[in-house]
Amino acid sequence: MLPTPFDANGAVDTPSFNRLVGAARAANCTGVVTLGVMGEAHRLTDAERGQVIDAVVSAAGDDLTVTVGASAESGRALSARVLDAQSAGATAVMIAPAKMVKPNPNATYAYYAAAQEVTEIPIAVQDLPEQTGVHLDPTFIGKLHSELPDAKYLKLEDPPTPQKITRVIEATKGTMGIFGGLGGVFLFEELRRGAIGTMTGFAYPEVLVAIHNYLASGDVEHARAIFYRWIPLIRYENSIGISLAIRKEIMKRRGFITTSDVRPPSPPIDDSTLEELDDLMNALDLNVENL
Amino acid sequence: MLPTPFDANGAVDTPSFNRLVGAARAANCTGVVTLGVMGEAHRLTDAERGQVIDAVVSAAGDDLTVTVGASAESGRALSARVLDAQSAGATAVMIAPAKMVKPNPNATYAYYAAAQEVTEIPIAVQDLPEQTGVHLDPTFIGKLHSELPDAKYLKLEDPPTPQKITRVIEATKGTMGIFGGLGGVFLFEELRRGAIGTMTGFAYPEVLVAIHNYLASGDVEHARAIFYRWIPLIRYENSIGISLAIRKEIMKRRGFITTSDVRPPSPPIDDSTLEELDDLMNALDLNVENL
Amino acid sequence: MLPTPFDANGAVDTPSFNRLVGAARAANCTGVVTLGVMGEAHRLTDAERGQVIDAVVSAAGDDLTVTVGASAESGRALSARVLDAQSAGATAVMIAPAKMVKPNPNATYAYYAAAQEVTEIPIAVQDLPEQTGVHLDPTFIGKLHSELPDAKYLKLEDPPTPQKITRVIEATKGTMGIFGGLGGVFLFEELRRGAIGTMTGFAYPEVLVAIHNYLASGDVEHARAIFYRWIPLIRYENSIGISLAIRKEIMKRRGFITTSDVRPPSPPIDDSTLEELDDLMNALDLNVENL
Amino acid sequence: MLPTPFDANGAVDTPSFNRLVGAARAANCTGVVTLGVMGEAHRLTDAERGQVIDAVVSAAGDDLTVTVGASAESGRALSARVLDAQSAGATAVMIAPAKMVKPNPNATYAYYAAAQEVTEIPIAVQDLPEQTGVHLDPTFIGKLHSELPDAKYLKLEDPPTPQKITRVIEATKGTMGIFGGLGGVFLFEELRRGAIGTMTGFAYPEVLVAIHNYLASGDVEHARAIFYRWIPLIRYENSIGISLAIRKEIMKRRGFITTSDVRPPSPPIDDSTLEELDDLMNALDLNVENL
Repeated sequence: MLPTPFDANGAVDTPSFNRLVGAARAANCTGVVTLGVMGEAHRLTDAERGQVIDAVVSAAGDDLTVTVGASAESGRALSARVLDAQSAGATAVMIAPAKMVKPNPNATYAYYAAAQEVTEIPIAVQDLPEQTGVHLDPTFIGKLHSELPDAKYLKLEDPPTPQKITRVIEATKGTMGIFGGLGGVFLFEELRRGAIGTMTGFAYPEVLVAIHNYLASGDVEHARAIFYRWIPLIRYENSIGISLAIRKEIMKRRGFITTSDVRPPSPPIDDSTLEELDDLMNALDLNVENL
Repeated sequence: MLPTPFDANGAVDTPSFNRLVGAARAANCTGVVTLGVMGEAHRLTDAERGQVIDAVVSAAGDDLTVTVGASAESGRALSARVLDAQSAGATAVMIAPAKMVKPNPNATYAYYAAAQEVTEIPIAVQDLPEQTGVHLDPTFIGKLHSELPDAKYLKLEDPPTPQKITRVIEATKGTMGIFGGLGGVFLFEELRRGAIGTMTGFAYPEVLVAIHNYLASGDVEHARAIFYRWIPLIRYENSIGISLAIRKEIMKRRGFITTSDVRPPSPPIDDSTLEELDDLMNALDLNVENL
Repeated sequence: MLPTPFDANGAVDTPSFNRLVGAARAANCTGVVTLGVMGEAHRLTDAERGQVIDAVVSAAGDDLTVTVGASAESGRALSARVLDAQSAGATAVMIAPAKMVKPNPNATYAYYAAAQEVTEIPIAVQDLPEQTGVHLDPTFIGKLHSELPDAKYLKLEDPPTPQKITRVIEATKGTMGIFGGLGGVFLFEELRRGAIGTMTGFAYPEVLVAIHNYLASGDVEHARAIFYRWIPLIRYENSIGISLAIRKEIMKRRGFITTSDVRPPSPPIDDSTLEELDDLMNALDLNVENL
Repeated sequence: MLPTPFDANGAVDTPSFNRLVGAARAANCTGVVTLGVMGEAHRLTDAERGQVIDAVVSAAGDDLTVTVGASAESGRALSARVLDAQSAGATAVMIAPAKMVKPNPNATYAYYAAAQEVTEIPIAVQDLPEQTGVHLDPTFIGKLHSELPDAKYLKLEDPPTPQKITRVIEATKGTMGIFGGLGGVFLFEELRRGAIGTMTGFAYPEVLVAIHNYLASGDVEHARAIFYRWIPLIRYENSIGISLAIRKEIMKRRGFITTSDVRPPSPPIDDSTLEELDDLMNALDLNVENL
C-alpha cells in the first residue's frame, strides 16, 4: 500500500513515487496498491488522482502489479474510475462498497456489477466496514466472487480478520484470493489461515514479504520469530488515529519520501510521538538484512 | 435546491437544467443551489460536476444567484472546488464540514479557512451533522462568521432547526444570514425565528416563496394558512430515505425534468409510493395561483 | 405510548399514571404502552421500572391492554424483564433488538427466542434502527413471526414506514399485526397500507383514534381531513431532539401530568419553544369534540 | 478488570470471583475493577449486578481496592448505582458518560455532578468514546477533575492513548491519576508518559504489574523486554470483537474461572480460534516466574 507523498507546499509529490515504488521492488513485493484510504484518496481532487496513478504506473514498469483504489459513491462514478485506472495502465482495481444510509445487499451487488460491466482487469473487493458502514458477510462475498468473473480478490479489513478469512475460504471453496490488511497486526495468523498476501502499508515491507515467504516455504517458526520481533513496531505504527502520520514519518526516515505530511484534517505527528518513535526504533533491530 | 436530473441512460441530463432553473425563476426564487446532497453531488464524477455547474450558471443568467456545493474531504480539495465554482460563474459556495474520525473544532476551522483563502464569493456554511458527523455549536459558527469575512451565510440543517436559529442569531448578533433546509418541514417556524430564507428542494418552490413573502410583509396568518395547507405534501416529500425520489417524481409531473431517476444506491420510488403520491396530490389543491 | 411523568424532585410521579391512563381510556385507546424510549425507560433504575409497571397495570384495570417495554442488552436480561412484566400483569411485551458491534441475524434471532422461551403473553417486535443500530429486513421479521408463536406484533419505526408496512405484509402474508410509530407523522398512510393501529405518544390520542376509526369504517375522507388538520401539531411535537419535552408540555397543559420535566441528559423545553407552541396551539382548533 | 464469569447454565458464577480476585492478589495488583464493559455489565440485570458486587467486595477483603462500574443513562440512575456500590463496600466507582443523540459538555458535566453529589468514594472517569459516542477533550476532563473533588482518576480508552495521556497531564497539571486500558496494547508507552497504572483485563495480570514495577524502579529496559516479549499475546487477546471470549478462555486455562462463556449477543470463541490460541500460547514462554 503506497501512501500519497506531499511536498512542502502540500501538493502531491510525484517524484517520490519512484522511490516508494522502488522500495517495494527492493522488498520483493509483487505489486503496489495506490489510492486506498492510506493513500488519502478521499482527500485528493480527481486531477490529483490522475497524477498519482500515472506516477505509480510509470514507476512500476512491467515487473510490479499496480492496484488502484476506485471506490466511489455510485456505480456510475465507480465505472468511470475503473475505466480511468484501466486506461492509465492499472493491473487491478480495489473497490470498497459505497456508503448507504440503509445498507442493503442488492444495492451493493449492483454497485460491484457496475464495475464488472466495464472492467477488463481483476477487482479486489475491499471489506472495510469501519469506513464504509457496510458489512459484507461471507456468503455475500462468495456471491460476488462466483457471479462477477473479475471479483477475484478480497482485501479483508473486517476484524477479527483471521476468523473471517476462514469463513470466506469456506464460502468460496478457497477460490478467492484473500489479502489481509489493517496494518499487518494479524499478518501471521492471516497467512496461516490461508490469506495469499497482505495489502498494508507497514513501512518495512521487507518484513511482510519475509514472513510470507518463510511461511510459503514451510518454515513457520522462522516466520513467527520475525513477526514477533517486529510486532512492537507494527503495533505502534498502527496507532488508531495517527497511524498514517507515523507510517509516513518512518518512510521519511528510510528515505522513501520527502515529508511526512498528511493532508488535514488527518492529524499530524506531534513531538512526543516523534520521541516515542525514536525510542522504539532505537530499541529494535531494524536491519532488514537480518530477516 | 436543484436536483441533478438524469436521462434515460443515467447520464446527467443537462438540458433539463433550463427548465429547472426556469421554474425557480417563475417561482420568484432569488437564486438556485446546485450540487448539494439533494443534487446527488457525491454520486457524480468531477467531470459531471463541471457539466452541472456550467448548465446551471448558463440557465441562471444575471437574475438568479447560483450557489454551488463545494464540500470536500480536505481543505486542499475544497479550495480546488471553490476555485472551480468561482471561475465557472458561481455567486456563492456552500460548504459542509469534512468528515473526521474524531471531530475537532480546530481542524474544521482550518478547513473553512482554506476556502476563505481562495474565495472571492460568499460562503454558506452547511450545518448538516446527520451526513457529516460534525456538530457545529452556535459559538463555533459565530467564530467562523466573525473571523472569515466571506462566511456570511448558514444553511442550517441540524434539528431542531427553529431553536438553533435562535441560538445562532444570539451568537452572531443577527449578522449572519441563516437559511433553513430539511425539506421545509419547519419553514414557518424558521422564518419567524429570523431565517432569511430556505435552501430546500420542495417541488413547489412557489409555496416556499409565498410563505416567505407573506411573512416579510407582516401577514403572518396568510403565511401560516399556506404552510398548514401544504404541510401534508411537504411532510410526504420529506419521507426519510426516499425523499429525493419522491421529489423528482413530482418535478417530473410538473414537467421540470424528464425522468425521476436517482443514482443508485439511492433507492428509487416504488409503485405503492406512486399510488400514495397520486392520492395525496389529488386530495390537495395544488394550484399555485391560489397562494 | 405513555411517557414517564416526574415530580418536582425528579422522582417518578406514580400518581399521574392514573390521569395518563384515564386519558387513554377517555380517548378510546385499546391499550397503553409503557417503558418505551418515550417512557425514558433507559433513564430509569430497575426499581423505578417496577414502580412504573405497577402503577400502569393498576390504572389500566381490565379494560385496557398494557404493553411493557422489556428491551435489554442480552437474551438473559431480556428474559428477566419479560418475566417481571408478565408477573406484574402486563398483557404484552415490546422488545427492540439488542445493540451489537456487528449486527447479525442469528444473534438477534436468539435474543428474541430467549423471550419466547419464557413468555406467556404476546411480543411486539420493535423495529427501531435509529436507536438500536440493527436493521430488520422484512424476511427476517417474517421468520421471527412464523417461528416464534408469540411474536404476533410489530411496532414499525424504520422509515419510510408506509413502504415497509407493505413489504412486511407481503413477507408475513398479512398475519402479523403491525403498529406504526414515529410520532404519527405518517399515520394516515400507515393505516391505509394495512397497519392495525399505532403506538405513539401524540398528546391528543383522540385524534389518532378518530383517524383509525373513520378509516376502519371506510370514511377515508373524514380520516384524511382530521389528519391533515392536525398534522401541523403532529409534526411540531415530533421535533427531532426535543419531541419528548414538547409532548410532555402539551400533556401538562391538558392536565395529564404535573410537570413537563424530562430526565437529563434529554434536553428540556426552552422559552422560545414554549412561545412557539403557544402560537401553534392557539392557531389550531384543538377541540377534540370536533373530530 | 474482572470479567463476569458464568456457570454452565448461563447464570453468574459467583464462586469463581474468589479465584479471580485471588489471582489479582497473587499478581500483586493493588485492586480490582468490576462491572465494566469487559465485565459485561450491560448484559446483566440489576439483581445480578448486586450479586457481582457482593462477591467481589467479599473476595477483595481489606487488601485490595474495589472499583465498581456505575455508568448509567441518566444522572439519576447513575446516583442510584453509585450509592449501591458505595453501600456494598466499593472503594471507588468508574463512570463512563451517558450516551446522547447530540453530545454536549454541559449535559455530561451535569451527569458527573450528579455522581459527585452522592459519592463519598473516588470517581474514575472512563473515557471510552467508541462505546459512548462522547468525546471528552483534555480541557473538559481537567474541568471535571478540578471542580468535582472526587473525580480523581481517569481511565483513558480514547486512542491514541499515549498522546492523550500527555495532553491530559498538561491539562490537569499532573494531579489526576490516569490509568490506561484497551487491553494493554500500549501499556509501556502509557506508563512512560505518566499513567499511574492500567485497568485492563489481560489474563496475565502479573505481566502488567511487572512492567509497571520495573518502570517505577527505573529499569526501563527490563520493563520493555517483558512488554515486547508478551505483546504477541496481548495483541491477540485484544482481537476486535472476540477479545472477551479469548480472555475468558485463557483465564479458564489458568484455572481462574470455570467456563469461558460470554453472554450473547457477544460472540463466543470458535474452534479455529482455540487452535490458533493453542499455537500462540505454546510458542511463548508463559511462565510468570520469568518476569
